[in-house]
Amino acid sequence: MISVEEARRRILEGLSATPAETVPLAMGWNRILARPVRSRVTQPPADVSAMDGYAVRAAEALEGARLTVIGVAPAGHPFAGTVGPGEAVRIFTGAFVPPGADAILLQEDAAAGDGQVRVTETVRPGRWIRARGLDFATGEELLPAGKRLTARDIGLAAAANHAWLAVHRAPRIGILATGDEIALPGDPIPEGGIVSSNAHALAALVRASGGDPLVLPIAPDDREAIAAAAVAARACDMLVTTGGASVGDHDLVQAALGPQGFALDFWQIAMRPGKPLIWGRLGATPVLGLPGNPVSAMVCAVLFLIPAIARLSGLPGEPPRTIRALAGAPLAANDRRFDHLRATLATGADGQPVATPFPQQDSSMLKVLSRAEGLILRAPLAPALPAGAAVEVIPLGDLGI
Amino acid sequence: MISVEEARRRILEGLSATPAETVPLAMGWNRILARPVRSRVTQPPADVSAMDGYAVRAAEALEGARLTVIGVAPAGHPFAGTVGPGEAVRIFTGAFVPPGADAILLQEDAAAGDGQVRVTETVRPGRWIRARGLDFATGEELLPAGKRLTARDIGLAAAANHAWLAVHRAPRIGILATGDEIALPGDPIPEGGIVSSNAHALAALVRASGGDPLVLPIAPDDREAIAAAAVAARACDMLVTTGGASVGDHDLVQAALGPQGFALDFWQIAMRPGKPLIWGRLGATPVLGLPGNPVSAMVCAVLFLIPAIARLSGLPGEPPRTIRALAGAPLAANDRRFDHLRATLATGADGQPVATPFPQQDSSMLKVLSRAEGLILRAPLAPALPAGAAVEVIPLGDLGI
Repeated sequence: MISVEEARRRILEGLSATPAETVPLAMGWNRILARPVRSRVTQPPADVSAMDGYAVRAAEALEGARLTVIGVAPAGHPFAGTVGPGEAVRIFTGAFVPPGADAILLQEDAAAGDGQVRVTETVRPGRWIRARGLDFATGEELLPAGKRLTARDIGLAAAANHAWLAVHRAPRIGILATGDEIALPGDPIPEGGIVSSNAHALAALVRASGGDPLVLPIAPDDREAIAAAAVAARACDMLVTTGGASVGDHDLVQAALGPQGFALDFWQIAMRPGKPLIWGRLGATPVLGLPGNPVSAMVCAVLFLIPAIARLSGLPGEPPRTIRALAGAPLAANDRRFDHLRATLATGADGQPVATPFPQQDSSMLKVLSRAEGLILRAPLAPALPAGAAVEVIPLGDLGI
Repeated sequence: MISVEEARRRILEGLSATPAETVPLAMGWNRILARPVRSRVTQPPADVSAMDGYAVRAAEALEGARLTVIGVAPAGHPFAGTVGPGEAVRIFTGAFVPPGADAILLQEDAAAGDGQVRVTETVRPGRWIRARGLDFATGEELLPAGKRLTARDIGLAAAANHAWLAVHRAPRIGILATGDEIALPGDPIPEGGIVSSNAHALAALVRASGGDPLVLPIAPDDREAIAAAAVAARACDMLVTTGGASVGDHDLVQAALGPQGFALDFWQIAMRPGKPLIWGRLGATPVLGLPGNPVSAMVCAVLFLIPAIARLSGLPGEPPRTIRALAGAPLAANDRRFDHLRATLATGADGQPVATPFPQQDSSMLKVLSRAEGLILRAPLAPALPAGAAVEVIPLGDLGI
């Protein structure tokens, strides 16, 4: 058995980013940039007015002065002439400041009438003018390769005149649930069987993490069926299986894939829930074999699959973010396996988060998993802790899963 | 001018949830449930084995005992008989426990051979059996209406045998950018013009918030063009405009919509950036008029549009979540407008977050907005603060925008 850290390191080092594809700007949100975005324009393209008012020569725009309004400059319609002595141009936010003017008289500080404007508050040189290039200049790198694009980044790329973006292709993750006992929701349930949940939860997790899930038909506990489905998934950037990863006679994933050339890296991790986890490669396709218990499958997906999808997407693939919280109940001493306790998160009297484990931690309990707001981390051989002690927690809401 | 809180209250009270639609389970992730999910099955459907081993009668499974293996029970293939005195059944994780047996002997605690199994560690009654209904029972409400569905919830709904879900329709948000000076990325830029960024950033923000953006063609600064585009957007659950919301002669949204029956609620908020914000109704369609400055538009979208989309989606529509941080630089005293300073977020020496405002806070600067990790909240008339003082911050990464 290897440690959680060692397992994640070995998984990540076996993965590299998908190639780039061109997508329309409007489809770029939440994708990972494959090439930097450099500005194709200077913004603003000239000195522009930051307010509605009058473009003036500051030296003469003293309180009480009267100026002749010689024209108007709305945004997008530059005034063609020059502001000479004793003159002003009516101007609006975003409009180019006409030559000759060096400040904006706010309309609140002006009294207009009869083609003239009277200054009611003295203007300082340069006031309310946004200088050319204040935001960015042509050729400047605005967004680096490897950045996950926010809505604000999309706005910035638009302003920099990009209609297209080069992003990493969303990793296609094949998902293969195995087992004679499972049926799709709504389908007839075999005697002694249950409804399949892992593939659907994992597909949603893949989507939440920026991947493109490909849910394969359920494979029965039969070596040839598993091998056929796995071969069909070679077009994926990664194949994820659930079930069949344990040590029983009916745990078939390794046995089925071996004759197909499966190269095993490791298959046991010192953790709970989720000790039996397969990692290897089928030809060029990385294969992650998750346990069949739904809670084990999801906890392993949080620890290993989400970072793996990030790495495939062009990000480094960090461990899940943790927060410091106070234990809401006493915690027993831990054994040699890294434990992940399903817990609620609340805000304590002093504003600190309080993580309280559910009394039942059985790895089959989906209802508890659905209600959990975090996973309390318990390192191997961690001592017993009283209520109120500090613990590290993975907040699940963060991950959108 | 009204306060930020009052503006949000008036926006939210004018909105209600979209009607329900039926979607396949696989499309339910991140949607808001319109009807509760009740279980259609009991899980597990019978007492099942939690491990691989042997189903035994605990009273006789004492260390050293030998039992006759009378059959096998893989998951999905229940053993047809009964476990009698001196007997055991080979069993695998998830398989129904056969009648007569009341505990599981772990395979690690057993030595098998010649059709028999020898007990190497005494078994306790009930050990390694998951009782029928441990997770949930038929008819139980598992997921309430109004819940945003996580990947784990999708797994739970699947296990409860739901192939379809009733969720609120994703709110369709029309987005209308106005202005003679703006051009689409890649299109010819008019003299004195710039590239349009707001509509694209807002469309991404709408998508990040669970809405369905409908980006309308840019409307020039012309009353009839704006009126026509607005009328075309009546099919939307909300129309969002950008630009034309200020007090200049060229701020046309109110003037253009008035003759179409626009009922104004308010149009100025005591905040920065983003004082001019229109809220009203065009027939049955709520209209949110955002400022044209890109930073103002995005900050107003964080404060008002994201909660509005949440309310339309079937959620209450809360203010953005804030965190407590330490100011990374001294902050000047504030005036009467609620301020939102673009800031970086870092982790300080003691593990607390530190929010440092960018030196330039001009509302035209998209590059600064893109690099900001949070908005420092400065209430009206807030006093000057030294570096290290506690401040409230909206973390932007949280919002996926």
